Amino acid sequence: MGVDVIRTVGEMHHAADVMRQSGQKIGLVPTMGFLHKGHLSLVEHALEVTDRVVVSIFVNPIQFGPSEDLDAYPRDLDRDLKLISDLGAHIAYVPSVEEMYPEGFVTSVAVTDLTANLCGRARPGHFEGVTTVVAKLFATVKPHVAVFGQKDAQQAIVIRRMARDLNMDVGVMIAPTVREADGLAMSSRNVYLSAGERQEATALYRALMLGQKMIERGERCAQKVVAVMFDVIAPQPHAEIDYIEVVDAEQLTPATELSDSILLAVAVRFGKARLIDNTLVQVG
Amino acid sequence: MGVDVIRTVGEMHHAADVMRQSGQKIGLVPTMGFLHKGHLSLVEHALEVTDRVVVSIFVNPIQFGPSEDLDAYPRDLDRDLKLISDLGAHIAYVPSVEEMYPEGFVTSVAVTDLTANLCGRARPGHFEGVTTVVAKLFATVKPHVAVFGQKDAQQAIVIRRMARDLNMDVGVMIAPTVREADGLAMSSRNVYLSAGERQEATALYRALMLGQKMIERGERCAQKVVAVMFDVIAPQPHAEIDYIEVVDAEQLTPATELSDSILLAVAVRFGKARLIDNTLVQVG
Repeated sequence: MGVDVIRTVGEMHHAADVMRQSGQKIGLVPTMGFLHKGHLSLVEHALEVTDRVVVSIFVNPIQFGPSEDLDAYPRDLDRDLKLISDLGAHIAYVPSVEEMYPEGFVTSVAVTDLTANLCGRARPGHFEGVTTVVAKLFATVKPHVAVFGQKDAQQAIVIRRMARDLNMDVGVMIAPTVREADGLAMSSRNVYLSAGERQEATALYRALMLGQKMIERGERCAQKVVAVMFDVIAPQPHAEIDYIEVVDAEQLTPATELSDSILLAVAVRFGKARLIDNTLVQVG
Repeated sequence: MGVDVIRTVGEMHHAADVMRQSGQKIGLVPTMGFLHKGHLSLVEHALEVTDRVVVSIFVNPIQFGPSEDLDAYPRDLDRDLKLISDLGAHIAYVPSVEEMYPEGFVTSVAVTDLTANLCGRARPGHFEGVTTVVAKLFATVKPHVAVFGQKDAQQAIVIRRMARDLNMDVGVMIAPTVREADGLAMSSRNVYLSAGERQEATALYRALMLGQKMIERGERCAQKVVAVMFDVIAPQPHAEIDYIEVVDAEQLTPATELSDSILLAVAVRFGKARLIDNTLVQVG
């Protein structure tokens, strides 16, 4: 196994200092494990722009709501370590829940405004859990660059704002979504899908592509774009739509007249799986 | 002037990286300026334990309540720079409000529990402003050690918890309170006191010493200690008591049966000045 496994904050601090003092650029890919090709592409991006790549693997309890899938969340550490080792990552940072949230843990990091819409509305407290854990990971791993996926667009934008607002000296890189052959975005939660749901779930990507095409062909009314996307997803027998939104890609506020940079974003439940996906569109 | 003045996040990040890469330990003393002997003793502590000392000077608007003294807060940058330069500090980090809180700033760092009592109750939002700005300063200056004063005991304890909870690799040092000859704790806000109020304000220290003596002589009932301290402060004609409390020195929760480490803490208004002071007592 080529990857070093570090399990404590103190050892990770020390390893980060050693790398930095020898002039090496540190890249961080934060994950919740059960890695798929999407994660691996983030690792590849990190390997391209930094000298030492740390992959953190931690299923972060504080970003799950009380009725969400924390206990069911898939885990396979041995497989994860082999995958990132084969790819050439240098360190796996794998802290325990007790290491991350010891008794008496009472601190939180929050980004307001950007978290009011989309998944922030659907999952109260979720982004505070994300920004808190990422602030901890940044402080522990001391990366020069951290790589996040476009699939979790709101998360990436929120983290970029946190890093800017708190003057963290970390470049936040956002890498393209990796998809299955039929367009379904890679996600650890895809394992929850039955064969039938898996088939229906391709509607997300089809809806996004249709919405994008409408805008590219001149449509400027967000409501009409949403209606067309709705008509692709809603007929799927197991689809429960959480949201279909057209928002400003920077502020994440609802876009009515479309201009500049627009994010089409969807969240849909199929049985136990809540899937999200999105696409960026440049308008005129 | 021997001290370098740095005014932007980017330049401070760079200077911090240069110091760290050459193996120098960085000390940080965060201040709101208008420096007195208390601040200077913090700088001296930092000089003792680190190689390069950064003094930040920033009157942080977000830690003042709407009816508090932000606009009146005393400022004298030239004098401050001369004082820390004479002492041998290396860098003054003096960002503008726009540099610290640019348009679209929406992130906060909060420590719950420890901020429910004492000044946290009297000044809602104050500690969130403190932890947010200190998180920013830690990320910008990248210190190995940061020095805070025991006079602001709750602030120091809250910041130590924040640093621990967020895995910040910063040692939080707490240095003893520096006092005038008659016991009044040094504070930039002492300039608000009229001559008569200045005289009355010595009651804070006398009350704390009396409370401490009672406990050292065996008193274990917090209520009795508070009553005696009250009787020293309340008779002062201009004193408006904000709180007189006896709390656990770690958790800052009210101590009823006194044991272990106890903090006696007072906050009293004299005209425009809200003064705080405290003393630590080891029980048994």
